[in-house]
Amino acid sequence: MKKSLGAKALVHPAPVWIVATYDKDGKPNAMAAAWGGMCCSKPPCVTVSLRKATYSYGSILLRKAYTINVPSETQVAEADYFGIASGETEDKFTATGLTPVKSDLVDAPYIAEVPLVLECKLLHTFEIGLHTQFIGEIMDVKVEEDVLGKDGFPDIKKVKPVVYAPSSRVYFGVGEFLGNAYTIGKKFEK
Amino acid sequence: MKKSLGAKALVHPAPVWIVATYDKDGKPNAMAAAWGGMCCSKPPCVTVSLRKATYSYGSILLRKAYTINVPSETQVAEADYFGIASGETEDKFTATGLTPVKSDLVDAPYIAEVPLVLECKLLHTFEIGLHTQFIGEIMDVKVEEDVLGKDGFPDIKKVKPVVYAPSSRVYFGVGEFLGNAYTIGKKFEK
Repeated sequence: MKKSLGAKALVHPAPVWIVATYDKDGKPNAMAAAWGGMCCSKPPCVTVSLRKATYSYGSILLRKAYTINVPSETQVAEADYFGIASGETEDKFTATGLTPVKSDLVDAPYIAEVPLVLECKLLHTFEIGLHTQFIGEIMDVKVEEDVLGKDGFPDIKKVKPVVYAPSSRVYFGVGEFLGNAYTIGKKFEK
Repeated sequence: MKKSLGAKALVHPAPVWIVATYDKDGKPNAMAAAWGGMCCSKPPCVTVSLRKATYSYGSILLRKAYTINVPSETQVAEADYFGIASGETEDKFTATGLTPVKSDLVDAPYIAEVPLVLECKLLHTFEIGLHTQFIGEIMDVKVEEDVLGKDGFPDIKKVKPVVYAPSSRVYFGVGEFLGNAYTIGKKFEK
């Protein structure tokens, strides 16, 4: 039996990403974000939504660039801190000991220690309400070599990204292998 | 050491959702989608991107409505099938044995058997490239009562949503609890 919870910002699963930018003075900053996802394969684009009140909001509009940094399980506390503190008053890189590195292709820093990074050029901005949605074209994907799988792509069991459950506000890891896409559903074909 | 993979549609983690619609004749249809995420808290909005070539694309534009259905681990093969077959030629509900139910608030069906459903009214369409992004305002969240936690919200360990790893094209479950948001990061505060 289904119960209605009303109009709520709630879906499973949500990602845990760190959005990194340079501010007007060139100071690197970063914040955690869970409202986002891939939005196009060609050109490859990713979306992330931030509140106007965040310090990163102005930096993205100014620099037309940001990186999406995918932290590993072992970096979940750092990611959480990036979502608590504000870059307007805190140097979050100093506080966490993480290292900002200048991106190759966009005017934004990425985080040296995270396993997976997307360098994004701002393509489109859409004001929705409390959040503003940014669509970024992925100019490059950077991956730590030790999390690459045999197929040359990042292996999710080595990247160990964090899954977020909104409303309950809890972080989880990635669990068991369930199957191959475009394969396990074939049993329903006539 | 980081390796550049180039401009690729690749990020971790991605969700596995089933987008359900009525077609021009009122026939229920559904397709799997992994390009999406929450995009605003107020009004609560969710985004999902579909290719123009999909049968669902036209139905969403026509009906201005769709539901996001979050399948459980046990429904991953059904979800995969919804991503393989086309609603133009196949009745995917009959093939999988899943049940379409008319939504209360929007002109779209939801899937009776999935644990978590978002009823969405189309708010905005943005043509990016291969994919078109739809932003839907969440009019209602429907949850199976047996997956609710003590806090009255869906418990991700009971919902058991599926996590998708693009490029490698593999499905995973949700793993271990890592910590509470807005809490575990406090140790980095001065």
